[in-house]
Amino acid sequence: MGFKVGLLGLGTVGTGTAQILLNPAGRHPLLSAVEIHRVGVRSLGKPRQLQLPASMMTTNLESIVTDPDIDIVVELLGGLEPARSLILQAIKRGKQVVTANKAVLARYGDEIFSAAHGVGVYVLFEGAVGGGIPVIQPLKQSLGANRIISVLGIVNGTTNYILTEMSAKGTGFDEVLAQAQALGYAEADPTADVDGLDAADKIAILAAIAFGGRIKREEIFCEGIRRVSAADINYAAKLGFAIKLLAIAQRSSRNGGEALQVRVHPTLVPSNHPLASINGVCNAILVAGDPLGQVMFFGPGAGAGATASAVVSDILNLVSLLGAIALKP
Amino acid sequence: MGFKVGLLGLGTVGTGTAQILLNPAGRHPLLSAVEIHRVGVRSLGKPRQLQLPASMMTTNLESIVTDPDIDIVVELLGGLEPARSLILQAIKRGKQVVTANKAVLARYGDEIFSAAHGVGVYVLFEGAVGGGIPVIQPLKQSLGANRIISVLGIVNGTTNYILTEMSAKGTGFDEVLAQAQALGYAEADPTADVDGLDAADKIAILAAIAFGGRIKREEIFCEGIRRVSAADINYAAKLGFAIKLLAIAQRSSRNGGEALQVRVHPTLVPSNHPLASINGVCNAILVAGDPLGQVMFFGPGAGAGATASAVVSDILNLVSLLGAIALKP
Repeated sequence: MGFKVGLLGLGTVGTGTAQILLNPAGRHPLLSAVEIHRVGVRSLGKPRQLQLPASMMTTNLESIVTDPDIDIVVELLGGLEPARSLILQAIKRGKQVVTANKAVLARYGDEIFSAAHGVGVYVLFEGAVGGGIPVIQPLKQSLGANRIISVLGIVNGTTNYILTEMSAKGTGFDEVLAQAQALGYAEADPTADVDGLDAADKIAILAAIAFGGRIKREEIFCEGIRRVSAADINYAAKLGFAIKLLAIAQRSSRNGGEALQVRVHPTLVPSNHPLASINGVCNAILVAGDPLGQVMFFGPGAGAGATASAVVSDILNLVSLLGAIALKP
Repeated sequence: MGFKVGLLGLGTVGTGTAQILLNPAGRHPLLSAVEIHRVGVRSLGKPRQLQLPASMMTTNLESIVTDPDIDIVVELLGGLEPARSLILQAIKRGKQVVTANKAVLARYGDEIFSAAHGVGVYVLFEGAVGGGIPVIQPLKQSLGANRIISVLGIVNGTTNYILTEMSAKGTGFDEVLAQAQALGYAEADPTADVDGLDAADKIAILAAIAFGGRIKREEIFCEGIRRVSAADINYAAKLGFAIKLLAIAQRSSRNGGEALQVRVHPTLVPSNHPLASINGVCNAILVAGDPLGQVMFFGPGAGAGATASAVVSDILNLVSLLGAIALKP
């Protein structure tokens, strides 16, 4: 039996995802049970790296989420709308959903997961945090035996690249940012990255999984790296520290009760700490749990291939779950 | 609905597993759907850290795998027999199986997985490699979108502890081994660890998942750390390398064809490589794939809590899969 995917968006991650699905040899055998049925894009005329049959493409995004033949809707449009509405419509129609949209999940996760729970479908989102590093699924399941104490790490590749360059070359923030923009590591409007907003979206998602319940995105303390100077980095190094933008979620005991702290800010990390040596656009996430102790996941935090790898891992996960259901005698 | 576990073995890992299952508050909510039904041990009289009702305990190990009420058999006896036979009997009776037995899997994995496939049950084994670090499940599923190029790393905590101590203190192998035995980090008979046999079992398991097919355990080249001297470590450090016992599985092109190399040996690792700074009893596993690039999993490679955490993650995984089946309309 086969599972039909409706893809929303054919940007870099959408293209990477389609390339993996169209070329399954040498990958997980279950991938051969998956086929791309339709692809929704904003513009048909745009020149694209990947040529798909014209009959497969549409600009009517709603027609993807309502198509009765489609089993799995993969949302890779980015941005809040129409992504949020399309995800909700797909759920209402009983579709399984995969998304890498951290902005939507951090703000509307509660609405989306409640809707999915009501209908009995899955919404998976490995690509939303940590690029291609498997972290969502391990946190949801492999670490489920543990009482989670903290989840923290470097979850924004752009700012880690900037801090790494500032540290290696002694240059200032503005100069390195301009270089990063020229190299395509930073956006023309770098606000979401350098002010820590992207990292805050991601830690909101990780904290919700690790600790359960609702994380109010607007209550996350968030300080970016604009005010970190080359001199700060230099002094920190002399004292035996690296400066890293960390996203942190941790339980803390306060007045006898338990509180959850979620925050993003530049942090002095001791040079011998595993996070101190995570350089460039890499991401690394540390999870501390009882009885496990501390584990770290490290890898490429960005890039079309990395995120596409995570998106396809969610599709595989769905195929396993749906396959288990279908095989019931 | 509930899932009944039959536990084979109540040593350190079995005890840790039972403690998590008996105390689910604050962990994954699905754990409350799991109960320990019966526990098979070799001796009832042995003093134990964990007191279970006498009615739950038996020395008739076969009665666990044939008990019609038991859904999931968790094999934590260790050693080849009767572990292998009990696993095969459990499969024959349609039980789901969880094991942390790397020796059985490395030698009889083929027989066991064929039997499980024939009956349509799962055999999960996250605890067999990397202690509590989630690596089996990510490799099987989260990284399934990728063509795996190599899997390698530090998979034996005892030898990594010995090499770390030799490096830090300049002491010789025999002296550090004696200390490690006194501290309980090394067994009285250290052969399986120091000669690389345990690492070879583990890389056989990882290679079978990453590259598919059958890995002949006896064909894995295996050199341990007995002949590594303090002088070797000292010279290596001066040249900018650490000496680590690596277990390696990688594809290589040879004469136009593709071959798989699987081997274990002391390796010169450049000081700035992420594996060079993995010290003590920690484990770290690097996976390189296309299109993902390289990811690393790092954490406590040993210890009752770590392995028990991995065993319970398998039980949770089974509950998800069986739950998905049970919920089918």
